[in-house]
This record gives sequence, C-alpha cells and structure tokens, in this order.
Amino acid sequence: MINRLCIIGVGLIGGSLGLALKEAGKVGEVVGVDQDPDNLEDALRLGLIDRGEMDVVQGVMGADIVVFAAPVGALPFIFRSLQPVWDSEVVYTDTGSTKGDVIANLVEVFGGVPKNFIPGHPIAGAERSGARSASGDLFKGRRVILTPLATASSKALQTVENLWHLVGSQVHEMEPVHHDQVLAATSHLPHVLAFVLTAMLGRKDEKQDIFQYAAGGFRDFTRIASSDPKMWLDICFANRDEIISLIEAYRDALGDTADYLKNGDAEPLLKLFQDARAARQRFIDQVEK
Amino acid sequence: MINRLCIIGVGLIGGSLGLALKEAGKVGEVVGVDQDPDNLEDALRLGLIDRGEMDVVQGVMGADIVVFAAPVGALPFIFRSLQPVWDSEVVYTDTGSTKGDVIANLVEVFGGVPKNFIPGHPIAGAERSGARSASGDLFKGRRVILTPLATASSKALQTVENLWHLVGSQVHEMEPVHHDQVLAATSHLPHVLAFVLTAMLGRKDEKQDIFQYAAGGFRDFTRIASSDPKMWLDICFANRDEIISLIEAYRDALGDTADYLKNGDAEPLLKLFQDARAARQRFIDQVEK
Repeated sequence: MINRLCIIGVGLIGGSLGLALKEAGKVGEVVGVDQDPDNLEDALRLGLIDRGEMDVVQGVMGADIVVFAAPVGALPFIFRSLQPVWDSEVVYTDTGSTKGDVIANLVEVFGGVPKNFIPGHPIAGAERSGARSASGDLFKGRRVILTPLATASSKALQTVENLWHLVGSQVHEMEPVHHDQVLAATSHLPHVLAFVLTAMLGRKDEKQDIFQYAAGGFRDFTRIASSDPKMWLDICFANRDEIISLIEAYRDALGDTADYLKNGDAEPLLKLFQDARAARQRFIDQVEK
Repeated sequence: MINRLCIIGVGLIGGSLGLALKEAGKVGEVVGVDQDPDNLEDALRLGLIDRGEMDVVQGVMGADIVVFAAPVGALPFIFRSLQPVWDSEVVYTDTGSTKGDVIANLVEVFGGVPKNFIPGHPIAGAERSGARSASGDLFKGRRVILTPLATASSKALQTVENLWHLVGSQVHEMEPVHHDQVLAATSHLPHVLAFVLTAMLGRKDEKQDIFQYAAGGFRDFTRIASSDPKMWLDICFANRDEIISLIEAYRDALGDTADYLKNGDAEPLLKLFQDARAARQRFIDQVEK
C-alpha cells in the first residue's frame, strides 16, 4: 500500500498509472502535477488523481513515491526545482522513453544518480496523449524496463518493482545503454520512419489527392505518425546517437533494395521479403504466447 | 445478374469476390481456377466458388465475365493460354495491384489491349492471403480503380462497374500511369519500407532479443511485412520505376532527418513531425467521413 504517490506529468502514462493504482485500491492519495491547467482538470474529473498541483515542489510534499512522467525534455528543469527538497526517504522513478539521457540529467543536477532514483520505462505507449487518453489497464501484461545503477538502493528498487507489479506489469532489468539501443530499434526508428513517410506523402496528397486511395495497411503503417510531435522531438534528441546510426543502417538497406530492383535481382529481394515475414511471425508468436 | 463468372486465382481477392457475389445472390455459377489443388478445395469447401478447375481454358468456358485475380507475375502466362480462345462476347477484367504492367502484358500477347478487357484494382488488400482468408464483405465501402483505355468497349466497362457495385464498392476511373503512381506511394513504398525494417530488426533480434520489448505501435507498423513475399516481389518488379524513384526520394528525406539530428536542428525536425501528424489526421478524416 502506497500512502501518497506524486505523479509529475499527468498525460497518457502518468494518468494511466494513477488510475490503475486507484482502481486497484493500492494508494491512499494520488497527487498530480502538471503545467497545463486544462489537462490537470481533466485528470481530476476523470479520477486519475485525487489532487492537482501546478507547482512541483508543492506536489511532492509528503509523497512516499514520486514518478516523473513528464516529457523527457522537461526533466532537467524539474530535477533542478526539486534538488533543494530532495528527500532520502522518498523513492523516485521515471517513465521516460530514453534512459541514458535521464541519467545524464540527474548527474548534471545532483553530481550523480541519487541512490533512491530508479530509472524506468513502461513499454506501453500509444499515439494518443494527454490525461483524456488514460486507461486503467494500459500497463496490464506490459513490460516495464528498469535500469537501476549499481549504486541504487535495493529498497528503492524493490519499491518501484512493486509499484509496477501492482498495475499488472512484468518488470525487467537492463543496462541503460542496452535499453536505449533496443528502444531505438523497436520504437524510435519506426516512429521516425513513419513521420518521414507521412510528411512526404502528405505533400504529395496536397497536389494529387492520393490519400483517398490508401487502404487499411496504410492506416496501420502510419498510425504512429499521429504521435505527439513535441514528445518525439525530445525523444529523438535524447537518444540521437543511436537513432542516427540506425537511420544510416536503414538508408543503406533501402539503397540495397533499390539496387535489387534496378538490377532485376529477384532472388535477394525475395529473400529480404521472406526474412521480414518470418521475423514478424517470430515477433507475433512472442507477443501472443 | 451474372450467369457464369470465372475467377482465375482464388486467393484473398478472388475468393472474396466469389463469396460476395454468391452471398448477394447475383451470380448463377462461380467457377474458380487455381493451380494449387489445396487452395481450390478450401475455396469449394468455404463456398467461395461452385466449381473448381485447374486448367484455365477449361475454366473460362461459357463464362460471361472472367476476372483475373492471380498474382500479376502469372498474368502473361495466363493471357497466352487464353489467347486462342479469347471471346469477344465475354467481359474480362483483372484485380492486379499494378496496371501499366498488366496493360503491357496484354499488348505483348494480343498486340493491343482487347476492347473487352477492363483493367481494374480493388483497394482492399490485407496481409493475409489464400482462399481461407476470404471474406464476403472485403469490398464493402472500398474503392475500386478501373483504368480502361480509350478504345475500351463501353458495354464492357459498364459490366465491370456493375460487378463491383454488386459487392458494395465505389468505382473510380483513372489513367493507368496515374494509378501506378498513386499506389506506389500509398501501398508499394510502405510495404517495401516495412519489409526492409522488419528484416533488419529481425537480424538484430536474433542477436539481442529485442522484439520482446516492442509495443503495439511496432505491431501495427510492421503488419504489412507479413504480406505474401512472392506476391510483393511481383508487384515491386511490375511497378519498379515508380517504386525506385519513391525509395530514392524517401532516402533523401531520411538523410535530411538524420542531418537535423546531427546538427541539433530542432525546428525543421519538429515541423516535419507536425506536418506528418497533420497529414495523417487529414487521411483519417477522409477515411472516416
């Protein structure tokens, strides 16, 4: 049982966490901190939080656990505001999509990662955002990656693991660098590809009206291009080295593919398509088992 | 009312067309031609067709309408087999994803596009394939593009339009070249991008086990990479000039994106993401209206 939980950033992730814990009856009070008064009001009205605060120092007062669920780009400022009132008895964690960057920000503000801060990332995004998109079962059956440093307090780690177990998630531990590599591949690169394609075709559509002839496959393929642009700008810069190197690898692979077509090389092209289909089947089998 | 319809290639598209017409009670007999005896048996058992034939000449005998729904790569061979028994009283159409190529094949075999052949393409794909994936409402509310030549018989065109109206589709007419450009953008390029990404990440997954950390966005983004490799090989070669030029444009756009990241150019990157989101919203609004 958590006495008082403070969630900083009551969007899809923060709001869903508050709601899930409240629905499970595992928390005394959820305090939500958000800079957007309309979003805070939505969160209160929808019962995601019990109390809303605009001021982060005010918000964390008396909390047992503080969850940073704000966009990764906002974390340095929030860490700086909280540095004077940082409490060694409180457990801190975050939900950011990149971990190396969050850790670097902590080092900059605190001269090191506080022992009671456990970096985390629930793998449960969606193209929707804001408190109104929150859902109490967003984390059910999902994986949450924690990237605690060697110096982390084992009690704090235990507390954060429990927090995610309470909302139905499976918890995995990983090195921060490994996390950022894996997520660059499975999430950040696909988002960049979808944004770039949809922007390019959008310009074509303005001239040629092509979207009306697009089918369901296109709808699924471009879904992640509806994601929050500002949030993804932050993520891209936070993990930019990994993303750049994957973009380059992908451009090379696309170049090879264009060459197969130019040269009439059916065999390697067919193998590429077969490998892709087999890989996706492996992915689906994993998800469904 | 159609007396006898012959469908050559009883896969997802051909099988669904047979089923839809039979469900609507608008056809006397549906004859299915397929080279795969198992698939033909599935089609019979599922009631997609009334009679199955392995031989294409046998299959078309006595039909009022013949629909070519086989993979585009197989069409030249099929046209050649039917050339001696081509019937000026019958209406012919196809469902291929590329139109310039089908027309070129007709010209090669017949010395021109027969007046009673109306090239067509229902925009209703799926990553599933084969008779067992067929559904009677696959075409309901979907668009079908017809690309008749100036020399086409208006009676044949009318017959094919009616055929698609019977299964609930909206029929659009378009120049073949325009069709191939539009589909390269909205369908062929996205498929290539998904295949290339999924194959690349599949190799990573074998080493690093990354797929287990992929979320719903990844699942949607890679769905089309589960499409039939052989069919997509055919499509890619059939429309290769358009696809190559779009791959090159996309590679350039990705290169720009990598540069924004390298140079810390937040503004154009944010604009790109915003443009993409706005374009997708425009697409969704169109689909839903």
